[in-house]
Order: sequence, then C-alpha cells, then structure tokens
Amino acid sequence: MSTRSQCANAIRALAIDAIEQARSGHPGAPLGMADMAEALWRHGFRHNPANPHWANRDRFVLSNGHASMLLYALLHLTGYDLPLEELKKFRQWGAKTAGHPEYGLLPGVEMTTGPLGQGIASAVGMALAERMLAARFNKPGHTVVDHHTYAFCGDGCLMEGVSHEACSLAGTWGLGKLIVLYDSNGISIDGKIEGWFSEDVGARYRAYGWQVIGPVDGHDSAALDVALAEARADTARPSLVICTTHIGFGSPKEDSASSHGSPLGESAAKETRAVLGWQEAPFSIPAEIYAAWDARPAGQAAEEAWNTAFDAYAAAWPELAAEFRRRMAGELPDDWQGIHTAMLEDIISKGENLATRVASQRVLEHLVAKLPEMVGGSADLSGSVGTQVAASSLMDPASYLGNYISYGVREFGMGAIMNGLALHGGFIPYAGTFMSFSDQAKNAIRLAAIMGIRVVWVLTHDSIGVGEDGPTHQPVEQLPALRLTPNLHLWRPCDGAECAAAWTSALTNRTVPTCLSLSRQKLPFFSRTEAQLTDMARGGYVLRDCDGLPEIILLATGSEVALAVAAAEQLEAAGRRARVVSMPCAEIFDAQDADWKERVLPDAVRCRLAIEAASADYWYRYVGLDGAVLGMTRFGESAPGPVVFEKFGFTVEHVLELAQALIKK
Amino acid sequence: MSTRSQCANAIRALAIDAIEQARSGHPGAPLGMADMAEALWRHGFRHNPANPHWANRDRFVLSNGHASMLLYALLHLTGYDLPLEELKKFRQWGAKTAGHPEYGLLPGVEMTTGPLGQGIASAVGMALAERMLAARFNKPGHTVVDHHTYAFCGDGCLMEGVSHEACSLAGTWGLGKLIVLYDSNGISIDGKIEGWFSEDVGARYRAYGWQVIGPVDGHDSAALDVALAEARADTARPSLVICTTHIGFGSPKEDSASSHGSPLGESAAKETRAVLGWQEAPFSIPAEIYAAWDARPAGQAAEEAWNTAFDAYAAAWPELAAEFRRRMAGELPDDWQGIHTAMLEDIISKGENLATRVASQRVLEHLVAKLPEMVGGSADLSGSVGTQVAASSLMDPASYLGNYISYGVREFGMGAIMNGLALHGGFIPYAGTFMSFSDQAKNAIRLAAIMGIRVVWVLTHDSIGVGEDGPTHQPVEQLPALRLTPNLHLWRPCDGAECAAAWTSALTNRTVPTCLSLSRQKLPFFSRTEAQLTDMARGGYVLRDCDGLPEIILLATGSEVALAVAAAEQLEAAGRRARVVSMPCAEIFDAQDADWKERVLPDAVRCRLAIEAASADYWYRYVGLDGAVLGMTRFGESAPGPVVFEKFGFTVEHVLELAQALIKK
Repeated sequence: MSTRSQCANAIRALAIDAIEQARSGHPGAPLGMADMAEALWRHGFRHNPANPHWANRDRFVLSNGHASMLLYALLHLTGYDLPLEELKKFRQWGAKTAGHPEYGLLPGVEMTTGPLGQGIASAVGMALAERMLAARFNKPGHTVVDHHTYAFCGDGCLMEGVSHEACSLAGTWGLGKLIVLYDSNGISIDGKIEGWFSEDVGARYRAYGWQVIGPVDGHDSAALDVALAEARADTARPSLVICTTHIGFGSPKEDSASSHGSPLGESAAKETRAVLGWQEAPFSIPAEIYAAWDARPAGQAAEEAWNTAFDAYAAAWPELAAEFRRRMAGELPDDWQGIHTAMLEDIISKGENLATRVASQRVLEHLVAKLPEMVGGSADLSGSVGTQVAASSLMDPASYLGNYISYGVREFGMGAIMNGLALHGGFIPYAGTFMSFSDQAKNAIRLAAIMGIRVVWVLTHDSIGVGEDGPTHQPVEQLPALRLTPNLHLWRPCDGAECAAAWTSALTNRTVPTCLSLSRQKLPFFSRTEAQLTDMARGGYVLRDCDGLPEIILLATGSEVALAVAAAEQLEAAGRRARVVSMPCAEIFDAQDADWKERVLPDAVRCRLAIEAASADYWYRYVGLDGAVLGMTRFGESAPGPVVFEKFGFTVEHVLELAQALIKK
Repeated sequence: MSTRSQCANAIRALAIDAIEQARSGHPGAPLGMADMAEALWRHGFRHNPANPHWANRDRFVLSNGHASMLLYALLHLTGYDLPLEELKKFRQWGAKTAGHPEYGLLPGVEMTTGPLGQGIASAVGMALAERMLAARFNKPGHTVVDHHTYAFCGDGCLMEGVSHEACSLAGTWGLGKLIVLYDSNGISIDGKIEGWFSEDVGARYRAYGWQVIGPVDGHDSAALDVALAEARADTARPSLVICTTHIGFGSPKEDSASSHGSPLGESAAKETRAVLGWQEAPFSIPAEIYAAWDARPAGQAAEEAWNTAFDAYAAAWPELAAEFRRRMAGELPDDWQGIHTAMLEDIISKGENLATRVASQRVLEHLVAKLPEMVGGSADLSGSVGTQVAASSLMDPASYLGNYISYGVREFGMGAIMNGLALHGGFIPYAGTFMSFSDQAKNAIRLAAIMGIRVVWVLTHDSIGVGEDGPTHQPVEQLPALRLTPNLHLWRPCDGAECAAAWTSALTNRTVPTCLSLSRQKLPFFSRTEAQLTDMARGGYVLRDCDGLPEIILLATGSEVALAVAAAEQLEAAGRRARVVSMPCAEIFDAQDADWKERVLPDAVRCRLAIEAASADYWYRYVGLDGAVLGMTRFGESAPGPVVFEKFGFTVEHVLELAQALIKK
C-alpha cells in the first residue's frame, strides 16, 4: 500500500474512531474525501501548524461542515495543537472538536460551517480579500500577499442558493486563486441525488466563468495532483475540481446514504478497517504516518521565508508594512479617537433633520474616508441605503482596487462574502439592503454572530414607514428577530447623533456583528447634553426627563422617538410627569449594570408605554403586564408612509391617548 | 403604427399616468416589458377576465413585482374588474393597486411578488401542481387539466439564489409547460449589470435542463411570437425566453437605472408620450385599443368550452370530477371529522412517549393516507423530520404521480415551490427541515403569511436538545421570530396529543400558514381529560392544576412541558400550589376571549415562570416584570442533548429552584 493511501486511511481511521467513541457524527464524508484531503494538504497546501494565524497562509474551508472529523484529523496529523485526547472528546461538552467545526474554538478552523453552501460562499469572500489586499500592499519585488483559498464542498453545498449567488460573483471577479474541490458522490441524505440534483454542475460553473476540471477520480491521488496543478495554473478564473468519490469509502455502507449521518457501528467499523488494510488500534497512528503527515517543518520554513520577505518589504515600505500589520490585527488606526471626535462633532454641530439612512451615510462619509479597511457594498440598492459615499470607489476586478462592492440582488451571498472578508482579515465589511430582505441573509448574519466577527449590516426602510412599496417591503418581525439573535447588536438610532453612536459601537466591538435599523423617512434631530452624548453608548438612556419620579415612561426607538418626545411635551403641558427613554440598542442596555438600568427604568414606575413600528410583543419585557405597547400586530399596507403611520396609530394624538389611559389605570 | 405597438403603448401610458399620479412607483420595467406583455397576453394566453378563478386558466406570475403597473394595466385592458378609478389610486390606502401586486386584494393577481426571485420559484410550484393534477385527474379523451404557467422576471430575479434552487428542480422535473420570459435589459438599480451579473444565463439554464430561446428582441412582436411558439412546442423541458429589452423604453431615461424606481416626472412623461406617438390624455385609452385588448369574449369561449369538456368528464368520471372540484375549492373531504377522530383516538389510545417529530409522523400516517391533496417533502432530511410515511410515494417526473417531493438541500426554493403548489390549488403542501434552517426559507414563509395560504412547515430539531450537531443546528431565535411573524401559527406541541391538535389546526385554518416546532428527543405523553383535549385547540390551557388560586404558574411549551410538570409535582409535594400552562400556540391563545385568558392566566397571579429552550425575551409578555424566564440568552453548544439541557439549566432541579425563589420574592 502506498504511503499516500495509508496517509488517507489515517484520516479515515481517526474519523471512524472518534465517531464511534462519540456514538454520533458523519462518517460518510470523511471516508469519501480522505484522498482529496491527502492530495491537497500534503501537496501544495501552504500553512504552518505552529502558527495558525500566519497572515499569508492558504485558507481552507470545509464547506460541508458535517465532515468535521476530516478537518480535525488533518489538524491533528499535520501538527496543530490538537492532541488525540481532543479527538477522543469529539462532540462532547467543552471539547474543541465540536460536531461542526467552530471558528474561535480551535486554531486552524477558518470558519464555522454546517449550514450548507455558506462555506464555499464565504471562501469567495476570503479569496476576494486576498486579491484586494494584494492590490493594496504588494509592491514590485515585494509580494507579501499571495495565497490560495481552498474549499471542500459536497452536493448539498452546490444545491443551496447561497453558493449559486457567491460563485456567480466569483466568476465575475475572476478569483483565480480560489479552488473548490467538489466531493461528487451522487448521494445526499435522502438517497441518490439524480431525482433532485440532475443538473450539469460543470456547465453551470463554466457559465459563471469558472475553470471546471474533471470529473476526476477522487480516490486517484495522481489524478488529483494533476487536477490541482491545473487549478493553480489558471490564475484568471476560479476553479472547480469535480472529484468523483464514494461516500463511506471502504465501509459496508459505501455509496449509501446510510453512511452519511450516523456512526458505522462496531462491526462495520471493524470491517472497514479490514477493507482499508488498517491494522492499528483505535486512535493509534504509526509513527511513520505521523512523520509523513507532519507539516510543521515545511510550514515553519514557509513562514520564515515569508517573514524574511516581509522584513525586506518593511524596510522598503515601512508605512505600508505597519498598516498591513494593523489591518490584519483588526485594530483601528492610531488616530481613531481623532477621527471619531471629528465625525461626532460634525454630525452634532450640523444637527440636521435627516432620514437615519442619510444620517448613517453622513457618518460613513467620515469613516470610509479615514478607514481604508472599510469595504462597503449593497445588494443592488446603493442609492437607497446610503452605503456609497464620496470616498467610495467601485471594486474593479481588473485591479482589485476600490472599496465598494456591487453584490447584485444577492443578500445571502453578500452576507456570506462579508463574513469571508472579515474572517480573512484586513477588512471591515459593511453593506446594505432593505430590512425586509435581511430575511434572505438571516443565516449568514446568524453565522457572523456565532463566529463573533465584525461585519456591519445597514438595514434601511426599517418599518411600515417605507410606505408605498407595501407589506413585502415593510419589515415587522425582522427587527425583534434580530434583537433575539444572540451576540448581535441591533441599533435603531433616532437621529444623526445616535447613528454616530451606532457606528462607533459597530466598529469598536470586534467580536460582535452589528445591524443598523434605519428609517427611509426624515426624522428630527435632538439636541443633547454632554452627558446624554456619552449615555447613548449605553444602549438605552433618558432623552427627555421630567422633574421628580415620572408618572409614565415612554420608551421608543428610531423613527418613533419623535412621537414619544412630542407626546411627553404635551403630557408635561397637561401637568403630567413623563420621561422619554430612547433605547437604540436594547442588547447593550441589557448588559449595563443594575444601577444604570434602575436609573433609566426605575422598577417603581410600572406605568410604561413602548412605541415601535415593529412586532409589539418584544417590548413587554420592558413594560411588563401593566404597561402597554404601541406596535404592529399585523403586516403593513401599501400607501404613502405618513398615511400608513397614521392608519396604524403612530401619531402623537394616539400616543397621548394611550399614555393618558395608562396613567389613569 | 401597428395595433400591436399601440396596444403595448396603452400599457406604457397607463403605467406612466398611474406612477405620475402616485408620485411613486417603478416605470422602467413596465415600459420595457410592454411588448413582451402584449405578445403573451394578446396571443395565446388563456384566461377569462370574467372569472379569474377558472380552474384551468393559464397562470401568470410577475416575478419582478415592482412592475406592478404592467400587470394592473393588463388586467384593466383585458377586462378584469379593475376600473380606471383603481389605477388612479395606485399605491394609495385602500386601493387594490398596491405598490407590489398583492394576492387576495385583486383578482387576477396569482401571487404576491416583490421580493425578487420568489415569483419565478413559486411559478415552478404552480407548473408542478398542474402536471400533478393532470396525472391524477385527466383520463383518455378527457383532458381537464391542461394549462401553461408563465412568469416574467428580470435580472434581479435571476441573481437571487431562490430562483437558482427552484429552476434547477424545474429542469429535473421537466416542467415543459412552464415558460419564463426574462426581461434582459442589462440594468439593475446600481446601474449596468456587467459588473455584478456577467454570467451566461442561457448556458446556466441549459445546464439545468431547460430549453433556452433567444436572446430575441423583446420589442419585436413577431420575434416574440416565434419564441413563444417554440417555447410552447417543447413540452418536455421548461423554457426560458431571453428577451433583450430597453428599460424605460421610449423615455428620456431609456437604458438607464434612473428609470427603475421613481416617476419619470412631468416633462419626461410628456416627452415619452411624444416618442411613443401616444396622443391621448392621461388615463384615456381609445375605444379601439380597448377593443383590441378585450379578452372577455375569447376568455368566455375558452372557459365555456372547458366547462362543456368538464361536464363530459363528470358524466364519465363523476367521482373524480367531484374530487377535482373539492380539491380546487380547498375543502377537506366530507369524512374529515371521521378521519380526524380516528387519528386522534389512535394517538391518544396509544399514548406513546415519542419525540414530537415522530409523534407528528404518526399523525401524518393517518392524514396522508386519507388526504390525497397532501403533498409532502423535505429539504433532504426525510428520515430526520418524519415527513415521509407509509402512504408517501416519491413524485416521479416521468408520470407526475406520487405525493412526496425530494427538494434537495434547498429550503428557500422548497418554501417558494410549496407556496406555488398551494396557490395553484388542489394541494396542501407540507415539508420539513431543521428549525435552524427555517432561516434560509424565512422570506418564503413570510410571503405565505402575507398571502394567507395553507402551507405547513415541519420544523424539527427545535432547540439545543439537538445536541451534538452544535450551535449552527440548534435554533434559539427562530422560534420566537416565527411567532412574531403576523398571520402565522407556530405550534410547539409537547406530545402526540398536542401534535394532533397542531396538525388539525394547520389543515383547518385555510388562510394561515403553520409552522410546527418539533423535538429531536423523546418526550413523555400526558394523559388529559376530555375537556383538556378540547382545550388544546385554544393554543394555551391548563395542563396540570392545583387546588385554589395558584401561588405560581409555570408556562412551558414542547420539550419543556415535562420539566414544568415534574417541578409542579415537587412543588405540590412541598405544599405549594402550582399550575402548569401548556402554550403550544401562543398566537391562537392570544386570539381567545378575555375570559379564557383570565381563566388560564389569572391577572392576580403574577408569580409566573416561563420555561422554553429558546430566546428568553419573548416570554416576558406572559410573565411580566415580576416573573422569570428560563430560556436561552446565548447560542448553544455541541454535546449530547441531555448534557446541553443540563448545562443550560433545563433541569427539574433548576426549575424548582427558580420557582421557589419567585414564590419567596
């Protein structure tokens, strides 16, 4: 038996052993893709197991994340800090070897995968990041950014729409250093795919402008070598290598869907070992196999060579080198405080009445001009969502210069690509669409939250205030749904000042994605004390107060804050004590200490009215059973925005009426 | 000028006039697609304006719904009940002529469109419904089901992943009577699409197995006729007719994105009229143009011919004819009560401890066997989600027989296709995936809710109880997010009895889509009184009560009900009065009268603990500021389900602890 197949069998054996031990997992894909993994990871894949964060490493994304044991076996065998003990704890509480690979839990895992299709889509973002960084930082004689992005994917990934969206863009962008190995085994969970996946995948990828190689025998190492060489040789087009494989290779369940998602079982595991000619005890790998896999010496040499090259670059281009280090570290510029202060002062001093989508754009005028790492974009709504500013220039696939991406009408693909840009490092991606269409991207937003990465969603047209476009374009449940998503900040600013606070939060929270909820319609600007300008950062604060303990607290966000303030003024005129609490970011408010929360929302004041033109139910957590909520309990209607607002009761008169009824209760 | 271009110009004129009047709308697409619309709607499109519900009419879907004025003009001109007055109220409160076409608001609108890509995807479902009905009902010499499904779409629709997913399936299914006319104008909102949509669309559709026709000149009526004839001639493959057009045709903004989304303005409107040679006053159509467009005589003749044919069919096959009428009317079978009772009695008498995904499957064993209109499916998780039962057989594209569809890993496409099946009539679609992946389909679920159609989502693996697969597969925010979506029922049954109630509700509520939230893990069965069996239908009811006014109410759903019951037992043993409220469908509970709500949740009892392994925030609406929620405030973890439950505090001990602390408070 050749060393190569023995090396592949080591992956198979570890996958079988870990899955049997866990009594849970997906053996089919690791068994099927082991030869592909050997061909890539032992031949040309540039990485340094001793430093998984080496900036110029090749990226590897396991898009079919259920094959996690394949990746864990690779990391273990090539010398990453992943001892056998961790493999033995596969899928157990506290282990690094989670059921699906989890970014941040285990060095060497470039992203969290599991929801099919998103891995390959984010790999497109990583490959784009590489080209965009190369365009900015490489200099004649100094090539400091130069790596491949590889992804493994299965049939499921290629059925999911998000991969279609992102791969179409990869073709348009000519991402020649993106190489996808497609594990074409003809089987998905429901059985043979011919009944639901009969399309000509190769022809489809050629239609996107990709180089398509194969089908090659995914168990023929030499054929895989040739295919990979061919893929690397074409630097103008991304490559799809179609690898024909057998799911569950070597097992009695080979070529059957039954090998996909459950352990082989003791006897089948034994039988598989016999078929593979693998004689070792469970979790035991012969020293010569370890030696054949060990990527540490080559990895160290590669990184050292790069370090030397980078030193030369730093000598020739010291500022660029420092900037490259800063950006890859994800740090804001040294003069961030100055940038921030200038931005805030400009917004505050102008005090304009603007739609918050426009106010956000005013903030971006400052930030994009000063932060070259910001890469903007939109799902074909640039003019509406205010993501394009004076300092924006279209990313040009001929040069990869430019800091603004037209993603087309592809919200989900945009989200996954933004995740890839952020994961690669060097960029802070932000992009916009209508809040209603955040639905389409939801699982990419969720994945950003799970991974804890800094991406910013500009979600405009954030209520029935959208008006004429009607219910399909008027979000109702999206706003609270995003708030309910863990590790995600949803900011709904009421004016330019809160927009500035929202963007500041979005850029300075490096481990939390942020969604901005912005109005289509114009809103008044509120003047604030110095203290209030600071308080905004706490997510919820008193915007307008009364003397003494309030009789009623009006809570509002975004476009409804002005209603609350106007109603409070009238209540005051009628001799009532009303406080207005602006709550632009409930998640940040919730994270404040008890003292702050009590200062803003005193427990003793139970007469509370929340006002938000979104699903009402969310707000009972702040107003309780004795308060009231003016919100939405149905879909909106098509009519001019002010009419829709009025018909659904979002008027000062109605707020006043509700407030007075509550006070009397 | 030919009559044909004058007819097309009538569409253009009405679109311009209505959009100018509304000072809002999208003129570019109606101007660009008017010739395509004339070619289709005046030549071969079979419909009867006097009866928009004629069962065998051709279906027409305007996938690029922002072109709504094109459709409204067509409906008006061909003789639907849509007077000029309605066109003058375009986009105003209470008008039938909403910003985007809205199903149910206006006869002739086959579905609500606006979110791009979903129209064409649901058209795939309609075309499938036609073939599946034909296979069941047509008999030699009696072809009663025989119509085309047409869709117009733009570049945006073809960028969106959902169209990729559905069109791949349409190719696999060989839906030869589906004809899509692609308005290829090279422009989307951000400008010329070459920078973000450079793929070879025709080649892509050929890869799916479609017939691709063109590009043809979308303003050349004769060329369009030839193309449509060619499309209709191929009955084995769906057809994509690529029509090259000029957005904003005839206007000074022709070929420019600026014509897309805002009115032309008075002077440009005037100029356009001049270029088109259109002399009429606004909203004025010459009688001869009306006459040329009038589709009523031909429509009436067509329907009458079909009625005659159907009468002959009914004479030869009376039972089939009655069944066809019943199914197209969306009515359950006459013996529904018997089916329902037998199902319920079987489930109750067996009283098995089952995962609710399995309990749901037991319910389906009865329903699918008795309701031929039920068409099931799954996004490649059939074995896991329990949607396939003994009476299920795979839909075979060779015969279109079978009542179960393998959608592949395409949740969004599945949702849109289910919507199309329901909209066409004759079917009650249901399908399953993991609840986490409802994200991918969310906007199709939302569109079902907006339209008020009967589709059923089987969302299993509904909490951290999923276990080893980890956070990507463990829903947290999805459950409340679906509850916050208007006009949608989310049922989270705790056992087989509640599963039966959930399915009953799903099938008998004809204007509300239903999502079932089902556990992966086994749960105990609860015995109930006759009254409780009835109470289940009210969405929330007392499952276990104490003597006298409770000291504490434990509210729970699904897999957490058993925890609540066990804790209540222990509280009782400790001399406490605890009530358990099971709340399988909060939306239905909320719709009950005040008396029922007070009986279940007495206002006087403020000591309330809600328990649900999903985002905690939702439940404050029932427990208020003085209650407590045991829920999730972060993402889950990969480990065996019982371990994850324990680590996150979902144990009887912890519930007891929280309950006791609340009582003492």
